[in-house]
Amino acid sequence: MSSVVPLHPAPTAETSAPRPRQLAAQYREVRARTIALIGGLSAEDCQLQSMTEASPVKWHLAHTTWFFETFVLEPAQRGYRAVNAKYRVLFNSYYVGVGPRHPRGDRGLLSRPSLEEVLTYRRKIDTRMVDGLLQGGWSDEILDRVQYGLEHECQHQELILTDIKHHFWCNPLRPAYKAVSVNLNLGEHPSALEFVAYEGGTAEIGHEADGFVLDHERPRHRVWLEPFEMASRPVTNAEYAAFIADGGYRKAQFWLADGWDLREKENWRAPLYWLAEDSDAPRAFTLTGIVDLDMEAPVCHLSYYEADAYARWAGARLPTEAEWEHVAGQDCAVVADDANLLERGLLNPGPGKGEGRIRQMFGDVWEWTGSAYLPYPGYKPPPGTLGEYNAKFMVNQMVLRGGSCVTPRSQARATYRNFFAPHSRWQFSGIRLARSLSTRTRETSGAA
Amino acid sequence: MSSVVPLHPAPTAETSAPRPRQLAAQYREVRARTIALIGGLSAEDCQLQSMTEASPVKWHLAHTTWFFETFVLEPAQRGYRAVNAKYRVLFNSYYVGVGPRHPRGDRGLLSRPSLEEVLTYRRKIDTRMVDGLLQGGWSDEILDRVQYGLEHECQHQELILTDIKHHFWCNPLRPAYKAVSVNLNLGEHPSALEFVAYEGGTAEIGHEADGFVLDHERPRHRVWLEPFEMASRPVTNAEYAAFIADGGYRKAQFWLADGWDLREKENWRAPLYWLAEDSDAPRAFTLTGIVDLDMEAPVCHLSYYEADAYARWAGARLPTEAEWEHVAGQDCAVVADDANLLERGLLNPGPGKGEGRIRQMFGDVWEWTGSAYLPYPGYKPPPGTLGEYNAKFMVNQMVLRGGSCVTPRSQARATYRNFFAPHSRWQFSGIRLARSLSTRTRETSGAA
Amino acid sequence: MSSVVPLHPAPTAETSAPRPRQLAAQYREVRARTIALIGGLSAEDCQLQSMTEASPVKWHLAHTTWFFETFVLEPAQRGYRAVNAKYRVLFNSYYVGVGPRHPRGDRGLLSRPSLEEVLTYRRKIDTRMVDGLLQGGWSDEILDRVQYGLEHECQHQELILTDIKHHFWCNPLRPAYKAVSVNLNLGEHPSALEFVAYEGGTAEIGHEADGFVLDHERPRHRVWLEPFEMASRPVTNAEYAAFIADGGYRKAQFWLADGWDLREKENWRAPLYWLAEDSDAPRAFTLTGIVDLDMEAPVCHLSYYEADAYARWAGARLPTEAEWEHVAGQDCAVVADDANLLERGLLNPGPGKGEGRIRQMFGDVWEWTGSAYLPYPGYKPPPGTLGEYNAKFMVNQMVLRGGSCVTPRSQARATYRNFFAPHSRWQFSGIRLARSLSTRTRETSGAA
Amino acid sequence: MSSVVPLHPAPTAETSAPRPRQLAAQYREVRARTIALIGGLSAEDCQLQSMTEASPVKWHLAHTTWFFETFVLEPAQRGYRAVNAKYRVLFNSYYVGVGPRHPRGDRGLLSRPSLEEVLTYRRKIDTRMVDGLLQGGWSDEILDRVQYGLEHECQHQELILTDIKHHFWCNPLRPAYKAVSVNLNLGEHPSALEFVAYEGGTAEIGHEADGFVLDHERPRHRVWLEPFEMASRPVTNAEYAAFIADGGYRKAQFWLADGWDLREKENWRAPLYWLAEDSDAPRAFTLTGIVDLDMEAPVCHLSYYEADAYARWAGARLPTEAEWEHVAGQDCAVVADDANLLERGLLNPGPGKGEGRIRQMFGDVWEWTGSAYLPYPGYKPPPGTLGEYNAKFMVNQMVLRGGSCVTPRSQARATYRNFFAPHSRWQFSGIRLARSLSTRTRETSGAA
Repeated sequence: MSSVVPLHPAPTAETSAPRPRQLAAQYREVRARTIALIGGLSAEDCQLQSMTEASPVKWHLAHTTWFFETFVLEPAQRGYRAVNAKYRVLFNSYYVGVGPRHPRGDRGLLSRPSLEEVLTYRRKIDTRMVDGLLQGGWSDEILDRVQYGLEHECQHQELILTDIKHHFWCNPLRPAYKAVSVNLNLGEHPSALEFVAYEGGTAEIGHEADGFVLDHERPRHRVWLEPFEMASRPVTNAEYAAFIADGGYRKAQFWLADGWDLREKENWRAPLYWLAEDSDAPRAFTLTGIVDLDMEAPVCHLSYYEADAYARWAGARLPTEAEWEHVAGQDCAVVADDANLLERGLLNPGPGKGEGRIRQMFGDVWEWTGSAYLPYPGYKPPPGTLGEYNAKFMVNQMVLRGGSCVTPRSQARATYRNFFAPHSRWQFSGIRLARSLSTRTRETSGAA
Repeated sequence: MSSVVPLHPAPTAETSAPRPRQLAAQYREVRARTIALIGGLSAEDCQLQSMTEASPVKWHLAHTTWFFETFVLEPAQRGYRAVNAKYRVLFNSYYVGVGPRHPRGDRGLLSRPSLEEVLTYRRKIDTRMVDGLLQGGWSDEILDRVQYGLEHECQHQELILTDIKHHFWCNPLRPAYKAVSVNLNLGEHPSALEFVAYEGGTAEIGHEADGFVLDHERPRHRVWLEPFEMASRPVTNAEYAAFIADGGYRKAQFWLADGWDLREKENWRAPLYWLAEDSDAPRAFTLTGIVDLDMEAPVCHLSYYEADAYARWAGARLPTEAEWEHVAGQDCAVVADDANLLERGLLNPGPGKGEGRIRQMFGDVWEWTGSAYLPYPGYKPPPGTLGEYNAKFMVNQMVLRGGSCVTPRSQARATYRNFFAPHSRWQFSGIRLARSLSTRTRETSGAA
Repeated sequence: MSSVVPLHPAPTAETSAPRPRQLAAQYREVRARTIALIGGLSAEDCQLQSMTEASPVKWHLAHTTWFFETFVLEPAQRGYRAVNAKYRVLFNSYYVGVGPRHPRGDRGLLSRPSLEEVLTYRRKIDTRMVDGLLQGGWSDEILDRVQYGLEHECQHQELILTDIKHHFWCNPLRPAYKAVSVNLNLGEHPSALEFVAYEGGTAEIGHEADGFVLDHERPRHRVWLEPFEMASRPVTNAEYAAFIADGGYRKAQFWLADGWDLREKENWRAPLYWLAEDSDAPRAFTLTGIVDLDMEAPVCHLSYYEADAYARWAGARLPTEAEWEHVAGQDCAVVADDANLLERGLLNPGPGKGEGRIRQMFGDVWEWTGSAYLPYPGYKPPPGTLGEYNAKFMVNQMVLRGGSCVTPRSQARATYRNFFAPHSRWQFSGIRLARSLSTRTRETSGAA
Repeated sequence: MSSVVPLHPAPTAETSAPRPRQLAAQYREVRARTIALIGGLSAEDCQLQSMTEASPVKWHLAHTTWFFETFVLEPAQRGYRAVNAKYRVLFNSYYVGVGPRHPRGDRGLLSRPSLEEVLTYRRKIDTRMVDGLLQGGWSDEILDRVQYGLEHECQHQELILTDIKHHFWCNPLRPAYKAVSVNLNLGEHPSALEFVAYEGGTAEIGHEADGFVLDHERPRHRVWLEPFEMASRPVTNAEYAAFIADGGYRKAQFWLADGWDLREKENWRAPLYWLAEDSDAPRAFTLTGIVDLDMEAPVCHLSYYEADAYARWAGARLPTEAEWEHVAGQDCAVVADDANLLERGLLNPGPGKGEGRIRQMFGDVWEWTGSAYLPYPGYKPPPGTLGEYNAKFMVNQMVLRGGSCVTPRSQARATYRNFFAPHSRWQFSGIRLARSLSTRTRETSGAA
């Protein structure tokens, strides 16, 4: 481990056009993709809110627009007049610095503005944004915020899909988001799960100073890693079914105490969305309707508690985020073209393919790490209200890495840190195993 | 009190047409009025559910239709094929005998079926119902159920309005159900509040055996009344504002213990929907938008606890339902043509007018009585699943009488028993005062 | 039913001694009995509080003493100095007029004052009370309050026993309050359950003006009764076991909606304290330890919901409180000497004995009525702070009648009104059935 | 930072006696100290349970005894007969492997066994333990468990004091645990708060393999530290009062989102136990009664949220546990004789004294770190049921370091990891600030 392979760079348009022009093109593309996502949804669908954590699609559409209006247009344009002053409150997520907020759990109670009005709001802001970019004159700080806003919109694209999945799940009719299912299973069996060893020593994680990334990916810094090994691929539905069949949900010794209690209270017996947990051929609710589970696809919709319990049962553990990022940087330096990310449109995790000793790091399922979501050494939140973004959530959350089948490609980078509370199950969250190597720490450490 | 004036009869079509024809006409009329109520609402509006007790408008539209399909068409037509078998579960309110039910608090999560599909469902059932009625051959029991279903639909018409009022209240934009407000105040001051005395003795309440009414209005039976006096009109906003100004919400001695605790927990300081409780000119949210409160109109949107506390503060009490019905039978035997009921379209209580010593018994606001909702002596629930209707709610509820500004005229009868839990505030519920007369019971009782 | 038999008079010392002397004697006797009740309890036992509704024994001991200090000694003695000023807050139950109160659910957190200090408090107040009474000079109002305080202390004697039963139930060691159990079953089978018919007409209930009773038992007033029949004895454990065996807890058609939901939430499958609900010989936790249930004794520890469901299952209903009191006045005008009340010391309901067509009205188990706890016509709460006593609870409660095996004899009178929320199960609450007679109301009513 | 100073070793009796003899002596001493702690408490005091997290003193006495019986005597002695088989359930804390447990929140409901019985239980087990140790023949694994049990008992000594403090706080009489207060303030002002710089590089934390420590302190392992500086002493009450006076509790920008919401819900305006938060001379409830706060003593009874908010307000952050341990190992390698730990008996934090550039690391207050409680690399829980001990809590908790004024001296070691949920306030938890140094990471790292 004497050298550290450069991490996968955040995607940037590599043309020679000036930055505002590039941003305007990116803006149009990202915003159009959001609209494409709601193609099959009615105004009623877009208003659903099944739980506090999952917002209505309409709210996502408005909030991402509010972001550009509040953090770009307002500060960039002297005397800016809001499209609708009341939207400032209605579509503020949690920026205390911006002012009052509509309660998060009541977002589903907003029949007004209508979906049509929200779409009009989007169009108006889009015009102002593109005009503003193309006219030039915006400062670098403003341009950074545009880029930030696009990253933010990409995050909400994923949430639109995970949230609508949960909303539809609460309807006994179990509507499909997209009617036609795609058979992902090409008849190939996934490769056997293997463990790949990594030496210990110092490594570097976090993003380099140049290029846009989210605040909490910085600064790039050294960490010390003990020797470990990482699983070659995520845990599959078949493997997880074996855990269930072995009584995994009934054996306290594998569970964190908080998880054991929650499992009891919520009556967890299988991953979220499974319909028949104990048959040989379980079925599940998906964005493409109710399907026979592909047993060779990665298991998903697990809480951290379930992921952690599975790992103990399997005689392993979850990787730390440093281990994960180190492996991703070494072995998956470039995200494969056929990675199962949002752009591929499958909307479900698929059985592993591809080459390399470490596979499916990007796409398919987010992978719970054993790391709490905390600031990197030397972390500084951005100044001003935008600085509220990530820092205020740095407690009671665990880090996930790698992106899922509904993550936009631009989020698929080795340094990207996703985070959720350990009880969360409605994201496409799965498991990659790791193990500590027994080599005595102090002897091998000199070799780094 | 030697004779008891006949009560206002339940409305029946007094033509010479055969009953099925009459019912078909009534059916068309009632069902059309329901549709008329949703004229200004979008599909998104119709999906709102702000609290468990208040259902989405779309659900009301479907449930009332389900009622006819389940309790009329299914038993009446051999081999009946449901419009959609899944609606049997989705739109069952609480009839355990019919089978499983979608959870009441999750009715707002049904974006599917869409409003359009529900309206189609209504049209299909309407066709089948009218065809069935006109073809003849339905038994008297089935015809009774049709009439029951129409009464049921009228109840839901009122709920559509009280529920949408609450749903809209939860949107900070405070949308109006109907844009144009009507000024109800004609510059006349309401008459002074007076108390009218009634002798004690036996009286009869409840509905006669003939003609259709709800199960719990029967049987007609004797009760013993002690001498009492009844207020000539409901309590006004101005009078209630004096209670607030006198610290009524801060003086425990006027409150029931449960009410005092709830007031604290919910931070009640004025009736529901008041915006500025302590100004001289309070404003309130209404179905016609935010308005200056008409201080001479009856106060409404009070819980039983508030109504009871006000009455103590005023040195009076709430009437019993027997007293109320006795007075209504004697002094308001006919519901006045200009009573402020749903058909009048004002959608808000208005200042009292009219003649007679007892005014505004019908319409404007439901009047909380001091009677718990319990069966009459000799009460028998209807046989079969329909018998679940009222009997299962006969605990923890108080009776209200008289109908409100959103009650269909057909519900405005002296024997009609409405009931809600004492904490409920989202109905148009107000106060009429009564007082016991000090005449010694036993001496006067012989005079009955 | 042309004449109404005089009700059982409230017990008064019928000597020729002046009232203060009589009261002093009564005071000593009642207070001594309270102390006798705690004979087998440790200081730790007396501090237990298993739920908000059930207070620690130590608190009962202090609160009843506080009552005499606050409502008798303070107003009676100019310049009265409190034993401990802080007790005014600690041991105030709910008299808002007296000032702040220690939260009800936190009574078990008072290790200080110790039991020993509370007993010293009792002794000091006892001395002051008896001295005050014997010195004379107290007004009639003060003497009435002494009598009120004794009634109040008797009520708490019952609560000491029902509460310690629940406290001990929460200890897996299941301690017995009194080690030696008494076999109540003398080998006699209880008489068959029969229904006794009563004509309808006017009747009088409530207490006469003379003699001390609680405020809410007044005024005596007429009621109209329809013809009915009353069960000759309470429902037995054997009869209730048949309801269980028939699936009574799984059949929604017998249950009030609120009860059905609570049954589900609390997982009720049998009365409180039953250990083995479905065996032929169920066992139960009692004040005398775990025993084989006497199947011929009245069933108890039922909520109103269970009592009401049983009655429907049995094709009957619960009596109204007016019916109950009318029957008690007619057929049980004198409480039998061997009634199973507190003084008998059995501490459990026993199988019925005795003669008369209506048996076990007094003692054994409180009998749920179908009447909500509401004021009688013309009811006036006492003036001042004491007036808070009953009136503020007149909502959301049902009336029980007759007294139980832990009720002091002085409470066993036909007019006594007990009341609890319908979900309450920790009192000795059981069932007496009634049925409406089908005779047409209006014809028979003239015969009264 | 090329060399790492050896950490303070865990205390061991350094005599030449054989290990069992040494352990027997330690056992007697530790167990006697527990008994000494309850000197001033009554049986009623020892039964109090004010919240689920804080157990009754009696339960602590029994549970620590149960630990020796279950994990030492049972496995060590063939055919061992329990003192009382039911104690196995009653006093099991959370060892699922041992079997069922009495619910944690119901520990205050155990009036039986009495305190006297629990003390007898202790004496019986003490006899068996000392006899067993002195007779010899116990395996090393058993002896390790004895040592574990003593560490465990020391932990519960601290909990006895923090829990009784909370129990007494809930009594409005505010009893003092120990009547006589000691004035800690010797008139000296604490030294000004300074920051001491530490270079970055690799460091080692965790405990060496030899000698007894808790499982989660192992294995000793390398970490990478960026350059930082550590405050010379904890934050004082005076400094924290300035935060309050500056509106610290009302400024969202300093707070984690979860903390901000909890602050609102719980109405936090000052540390737990402060009586008058906004005066110049605040008073507080302590184990020695209500006192004027020593403004120069470390602030304590803070949640993680408050500690973190204070640090942001002060332009600093909380140290990581690795930083803390590194500093403790370098600068406080030996715990000072006069450190304010349990043995000193002050029971309150005191103003700082002493020498050295880093002071009060051990004793006075636990110091919240910014590190989540997670396993060290290569961590292995002990085999068997005892292995449940720490590993199952490794989520949703933050690490605290250093010990408090109620921590036994044996727990005061640089590697000791305490942990609590971020909302916890009833421990003696305070703040030590740290800051990142701006030196660029990558350049300095080579110097390690």
